[in-house]
Amino acid sequence: MDDRIRRHAAILVEHCTDVQPGDMVQVQASPGAEDLVEALYAELGKRGARPTLNWASSRAGRAYAREMNPDDVVTKEHELAAMQETDVMFFIGGSGNTKEAVDMPTEFRQAVQRANQPVLQERLSKPWVITHYPTEAGAQQAEMSTRAYEDFVWSAVNKDWAEQREFQAQLVERLDPADEVRIVAGDETDITLDVSGMHAKNDYGEMNMPGGEVFTVPHRDGVEGTVKFDLPVVFQSHEIEGAYLEFEDGRVVDYDADAHADMLASIIELDEGSKHLGELGIGMNRDIDRFTYNMLFDEKMGDTIHLAVGDAIEECLPDDVEKNQSATHVDMLVDMSEHSRIEFDGEVVQRDGTFVFEE
Amino acid sequence: MDDRIRRHAAILVEHCTDVQPGDMVQVQASPGAEDLVEALYAELGKRGARPTLNWASSRAGRAYAREMNPDDVVTKEHELAAMQETDVMFFIGGSGNTKEAVDMPTEFRQAVQRANQPVLQERLSKPWVITHYPTEAGAQQAEMSTRAYEDFVWSAVNKDWAEQREFQAQLVERLDPADEVRIVAGDETDITLDVSGMHAKNDYGEMNMPGGEVFTVPHRDGVEGTVKFDLPVVFQSHEIEGAYLEFEDGRVVDYDADAHADMLASIIELDEGSKHLGELGIGMNRDIDRFTYNMLFDEKMGDTIHLAVGDAIEECLPDDVEKNQSATHVDMLVDMSEHSRIEFDGEVVQRDGTFVFEE
Repeated sequence: MDDRIRRHAAILVEHCTDVQPGDMVQVQASPGAEDLVEALYAELGKRGARPTLNWASSRAGRAYAREMNPDDVVTKEHELAAMQETDVMFFIGGSGNTKEAVDMPTEFRQAVQRANQPVLQERLSKPWVITHYPTEAGAQQAEMSTRAYEDFVWSAVNKDWAEQREFQAQLVERLDPADEVRIVAGDETDITLDVSGMHAKNDYGEMNMPGGEVFTVPHRDGVEGTVKFDLPVVFQSHEIEGAYLEFEDGRVVDYDADAHADMLASIIELDEGSKHLGELGIGMNRDIDRFTYNMLFDEKMGDTIHLAVGDAIEECLPDDVEKNQSATHVDMLVDMSEHSRIEFDGEVVQRDGTFVFEE
Repeated sequence: MDDRIRRHAAILVEHCTDVQPGDMVQVQASPGAEDLVEALYAELGKRGARPTLNWASSRAGRAYAREMNPDDVVTKEHELAAMQETDVMFFIGGSGNTKEAVDMPTEFRQAVQRANQPVLQERLSKPWVITHYPTEAGAQQAEMSTRAYEDFVWSAVNKDWAEQREFQAQLVERLDPADEVRIVAGDETDITLDVSGMHAKNDYGEMNMPGGEVFTVPHRDGVEGTVKFDLPVVFQSHEIEGAYLEFEDGRVVDYDADAHADMLASIIELDEGSKHLGELGIGMNRDIDRFTYNMLFDEKMGDTIHLAVGDAIEECLPDDVEKNQSATHVDMLVDMSEHSRIEFDGEVVQRDGTFVFEE
C-alpha cells in the first residue's frame, strides 16, 4: 500500500478528529477507496473504536432514484437511529464515475434532501470529517493522469497542518475585526460585503480534508455589486460556466451564465435564502494549484476566493445576527491570481494572489 | 447488465421477502456484487422502500482485527440502534478474496461474536435473506472458470421456487411424523437420530438463496453412532478434511480429522452445546451438483445430508423440548450419492441419492 495512504489515515484519526476508545464510528466510502478504508480501520483499531462501514454506491442510488416515487420518500428511521448513537463520522469520496448522478431525477433529489433533514441535523451535531481518495474517475474529471492526480491529492491533504494553521492565522487576524470586504477582479467583479461583527474562521483541515481556507459570512442584506465567477460551478454533475451575479441590498437582482444558465436559475430560484450569500471564503492551500472540478479541493485553491449562495455558516455568526437560511449552499469561485485585489476596510490585503504578509 | 441479475433481484424482493412501501431496509454487500445491488435498489425503489447500504469489506475488517484489543470489543450501539428500526435485511455475499480472513486473530473473532449477540438477536427477529453473487474469487474457490461459475450460481438461485417447494414437500411429509432417522453411508457412517415430535421444515429459498433443503433437529441426547464427513468443512477460511464424529447419548465422545484436526477441536470444544447436534439437513437442490466450498450452496446440494454441531434451529423445536444452545453452528456434509441410504422409522426414503418418490 502507498505509504501516503497510511499517513492520511493517521491524519484523519489524530488531527481531524480525536477518536476515543469505545467511540461509535461511521465510515462512508466508495469501493474505489478501499485502501484508505483499510488504513483507516487499522487506525480505528489502534484507538479501540467501533466502526461501521457504509457504501456510497452512486450506481445503486441512481437505479433507486429512477424507480422511487418522490412522494414516498420518508426519513430513513434506521439511518437516523444509527446517527443518534454515533460519535464520529468519516466520509471518503472517490467515485468510480463522477457523472453517475447526471440523469438522476431532480424531483427525487429534492425529496431526499427534505426527508434527510433530521439525519443531517443529527450529523452536524457531532465530529465529522470528509476527505477524498484519488481514483481514476477523479483523475479523469480533473483532466489529469492517474499518477499525477494521486500526487496532487496526497500533497494537498498530507500537509503539515500546524504550519498551515499559522500561515492562515495571519489572514484571520485581519479579517476577523474588519467591517467591510471588497473584492475586485478583472472588469466584471467588484463586490463589497459587510462582515462587521462576523467571526472569521481558520480551516486548517478539521472537518474538510484538504483544509486551507479562511472564511466568514456577510450580513444577509450587506452585499453590493457584481461578480463574475470565472471558474466553473459544478452542480449536479453539470458545469455552469461564467456565472454572473448582481447584488443590491444583499439580494441577487440579476444573474446569468455562459453555459447551463438554467441550472444557475434553479439554484438562485430555489428559495429566498438562495438569493443571498451564506459565505465568503479565501483559498490558501497552495498545494492546490489547479482547478479539479471537485469543490472539496477547488474552494481551498490558492489565489481564489469563493462566495456561496444559500445557507449561512452558523459558526461565523454572532448570537444577535439573523442567519440566512436556505435548503442549499453552492460555492462559486473567482480566480484572484491576476488583475485583482482584496481589501479589508479599504486596505489591500491581497493583490494579484499575493497577501501583504507574504511580501 | 446480465438479465439473470435483474431476475434474481426480483426474486429477492418478491419471493424471499415481501418488502412494503415505507419499509426500512438494510442491504449489506461486497463491492464485487454492485450489479446485483443496483438491480436490488431498482426493485426496492419500485416497492417504495427506504434502503441503506453497508459494505462488507473483509480487507478493512482484517486490518481492524489485527490492531484492536479484543478486550475493548463492545457492542456497536449504532449498529444495534439501526437494526431495531429495520424491517428487512438483505445480505449479498461475493468477496474479492475468499481467504481474506485466514489470518484474522481467533481471540478477536470470538470477542466480536460475543459483543454482536444483541445485534444478532435483533436481526433474527426480522425478515432477512442471504444470497450470493458470483465473483472471480468465488469461481476460484469453487475451482471453476468465472463464466461457468456464473451459470452455476444463477441456475441454483433463479429457480421455479414453487415447483421446488412441492418437490421437497414430499420429503417433509415423511420426515415430520417420523420418530427416528438413520443415515448409513460407506463403511464409516451409521448414525441414528431421535427426531420424535420435531418439526421438519421445507427450505424453498426464503431466508437462504439458494434454498433447497429439508431440515429438522435431533433431540439433544438422542444421537447414537458414527459419522464420517467426506466433504470438506470450511471453517474460518480453512478446510477440515475427513472430519469424524462419534456420538453416545447425543454427545460427541470422540472426534478426529484427516486435515486441520485442530480446527475441528476448536469447534467441538467451544462449549457444551457444540458437543451436540443442532441440525439435520437433507440437500435437495439438484442444480447444485458440485461442492463449491461455500456452505450457502453446499448444504443444499443434491445427494447430500449435513449435520450441524452447535446451536439448534429454534423453529424445528416443539415448545416442550429444551433447545441445544451454543455460540456456534457448523454444518458438515456427507455425500449420499452411492453406497448409502436414509431411513425414517426403519423405512428407506433415499438410496444412493434417489428418493423413493422419485422412482
